[in-house]
Amino acid sequence: MTASPALPLPPGSTLGILGGGQLGRMLAQAASRLGFDVVILDPEENSPAGRVAARQIVGAYDDRWALKRLAEACHVVTYEFENVPADTVAELTALGCEVAPGAAALAAAQDRVVEKTFLAEIGVPTVAFAPVDDEESLLAAVARIGAPSLLKTRREGYDGKGQAWIQRPADAVAAFEKIGRQPAILEAPADFGRELSVIAARGRNGEIVCYPLSDNHHEGGVLRRTIAPAKAAPAERDQAEAIAAKILTALDYVGVIGVELFELAGGKLLVNEFAPRVHNTGHWTQDGCEVDQFEQHIRAVAGWPLGPTAALARVEMTNLLGPEVDAWKKLAAEPETRIHLYGKGEARPGRKMGHVNRLRPLEG
Amino acid sequence: MTASPALPLPPGSTLGILGGGQLGRMLAQAASRLGFDVVILDPEENSPAGRVAARQIVGAYDDRWALKRLAEACHVVTYEFENVPADTVAELTALGCEVAPGAAALAAAQDRVVEKTFLAEIGVPTVAFAPVDDEESLLAAVARIGAPSLLKTRREGYDGKGQAWIQRPADAVAAFEKIGRQPAILEAPADFGRELSVIAARGRNGEIVCYPLSDNHHEGGVLRRTIAPAKAAPAERDQAEAIAAKILTALDYVGVIGVELFELAGGKLLVNEFAPRVHNTGHWTQDGCEVDQFEQHIRAVAGWPLGPTAALARVEMTNLLGPEVDAWKKLAAEPETRIHLYGKGEARPGRKMGHVNRLRPLEG
Repeated sequence: MTASPALPLPPGSTLGILGGGQLGRMLAQAASRLGFDVVILDPEENSPAGRVAARQIVGAYDDRWALKRLAEACHVVTYEFENVPADTVAELTALGCEVAPGAAALAAAQDRVVEKTFLAEIGVPTVAFAPVDDEESLLAAVARIGAPSLLKTRREGYDGKGQAWIQRPADAVAAFEKIGRQPAILEAPADFGRELSVIAARGRNGEIVCYPLSDNHHEGGVLRRTIAPAKAAPAERDQAEAIAAKILTALDYVGVIGVELFELAGGKLLVNEFAPRVHNTGHWTQDGCEVDQFEQHIRAVAGWPLGPTAALARVEMTNLLGPEVDAWKKLAAEPETRIHLYGKGEARPGRKMGHVNRLRPLEG
Repeated sequence: MTASPALPLPPGSTLGILGGGQLGRMLAQAASRLGFDVVILDPEENSPAGRVAARQIVGAYDDRWALKRLAEACHVVTYEFENVPADTVAELTALGCEVAPGAAALAAAQDRVVEKTFLAEIGVPTVAFAPVDDEESLLAAVARIGAPSLLKTRREGYDGKGQAWIQRPADAVAAFEKIGRQPAILEAPADFGRELSVIAARGRNGEIVCYPLSDNHHEGGVLRRTIAPAKAAPAERDQAEAIAAKILTALDYVGVIGVELFELAGGKLLVNEFAPRVHNTGHWTQDGCEVDQFEQHIRAVAGWPLGPTAALARVEMTNLLGPEVDAWKKLAAEPETRIHLYGKGEARPGRKMGHVNRLRPLEG
C-alpha cells in the first residue's frame, strides 16, 4: 500500500500471507489475536488459512494480477513456505509492498548449495558438501566427499523427497539418475546422535530471541515427534543460539526461522538446513510458551517488540499424518493433550492433518 | 442440517455462531483450532468474528431467510449474546438445527424476574426481589424490599444501563420514569465485599467443570479488571461450584456459563446474575489455563469431552475500553502482557476494543 509502511504496524492493519496451508492458518490465527486483518494468497480455493482469514485471493504465486490485488490490500506480506519465487518478491516490492523475511533469506534457503556456501562463509559448521551439475562434477564430488554420501537436488524437495544415497562410488550415476539429473549437492553423512532444532526470531530493530531447543524424531523423512525443551547442556544451547544469531544477522532477517541441527558426539552442532518461516518443530510453543512462534513471527514482521520465549511446560508434539487424525475422539479425551487441527478435507496417507501437544510439568 | 447431528461432532463440521462481536470472534478462533469451520450470522457486514470465520451471513437475527441459510450450513449453532430472540431458536430448531445452550437457558437469562425466580426455586440464594409492572406493583415492591433499592428493567440492559436507584421510597416513581416505565424488577442492595464470578461448563453427557474464581472490578457499571484465580477459601470455591452445578443441571445446559456472585461478609455467596455464554470475566483463561473458556464452550456444544480448568498462572485481565487501545505499542513492549484485540474499527469511548492478560506465577 505504501513504499515504507509505518512501523510498528498498528492493529487494524492488513497482513498478507503467501500460502494457505496449516502454517498460514496458524499465522492468520495469531495475527487476528493481535487485531490484524489477514489476506491469504493461495491457488487453491477455500484453503485452510483462507477459512480463518478476512479474505483469500485465489491465484498462482506468479499471477501478476493476484499479486497486484494482494499488494493493494496489505501493508506487509509474509509467507508460509520457502519456495516463494524470487520474481514474486520482486513484483510485490515493486508494487510498494514489503515482504518479510526478505529476498536474501529466500535465496539462501531455496538452493542447498547457496545455503551451505552461505553458512560456510559466516563460519557456521555444516557437513562437507560439493555441488553437482553433471556427471563430471558428480564424479569430482564423490572423489572429494567419499561414500556413503547423500545426493540431493539443489532446489525443492522436502520431507525426504529428491534425495538418493550413494553407498559406493559406483552407485553415483544411478543416484544422479534417480533424482532426475537435476542440479544437486553431494553431502557427507553426519554421524549424529540427535536431530535438534532451534526456533529463533529477529525483530526489525535487530533484537534476537531463541526458544529452547527442540529434540526431533523423523520417520521416513517426515517429522513425527518433537520434545521440547530438549535436554541439553547450557553450552550446547549457547552454541545453537550463536548459530541462529549469526544466520539471522547475516541475512538482516525479520521474522521467525527454524534451524535444523545435527548433534555430534560431544555435543558439537552442525546445521542441516534452515527454513525462513515458522517451523513444524516449533509447534510445541503454542502450548508450551506464553508467546508462540506464530505470534512471534507476526510481531517481528509487524515491527512489534518480540515476546518472551521461556518454556512453561515440557511438551511432546506429535504430528497427525493422514488417517491418524481419525483418532481425534480418543485424543480429545486425554486431559494432557491439546489438539490443533488444520481443517483439511482429505486425509491422504502422510498428509499433515494436525498435531497434538502433550503437556507435562517442567522438570526442576 | 439434520434433526440430531451425530455427536461428538467430527472436525470438519461447521458451527454457526449468532453474533459477530468479540466473543463470537474468540469462539470462532477456538473452533478453528479444533478443525471446525465457522459461519457467523450478524447484521453488520465485515464483523470482527466474520473476519476470522469461513463465512459470514449478513442478516438480522429474526431474518428467516438468513436463518434458513445458517441452518443449511451448520451442524450446531451457538451464540455470543443472551438476547437471542426465542423465535430465532424456535426457527433454527424447526429447521433441524440444534441450538446450544438451549431455549431454557435463554428464557431464564433474558428476564431478570424469571432468572431470580428460577434461582429461588432451585435453592440458589439471591438478593430479595419483587416484580414491577406498573405504579401499583412498584409501590408494593418498595414496601416489601425497602430503600435504598435498585430498579432494573426485566429485559435487556447491561453494563449498568436500564437501572435506577431508589434512595427513598418517595423516589420510586421517578426511578420508574427513568427506566422508561418498562416491566422491571426491584432488588434489595447486596451488602457485598467483592464481586466474584465462576466460569463453568457442562458437557452433553452432564459432566460439569469449573474454572477457579474470578475477582472482578467494575467502573461505571462496566468490567474493568479481573484477577484470577481469586484468593478464596476452599469452602467458598465449593459454594460457588455447587451454585454453578445447580444452575447448569436445572437448565440441562450445554456450554460455558458465567455466573456473577456477590461475596457477603463471612464468605456467603449470592448470585447477581448469570450469562448463558462465554463471559468477559473468563478472558483470563486464554493465558492462564490449558483449555480456555472459548475452546471449552466449543468442546461442550460439539459434544466433545470437556478439558482441564486448572490455573497455570495468576492473571490480571484488563479491558481496553475505547481509546485505551491506543496504548497497544506500550503494552506490546511489556513482557508479562498478552494482548488480545478484537479488530473493531472505531474506538468509541467505553467500547470494548480488546483486553490484556498480565501473567504472574501462581503463588505456592
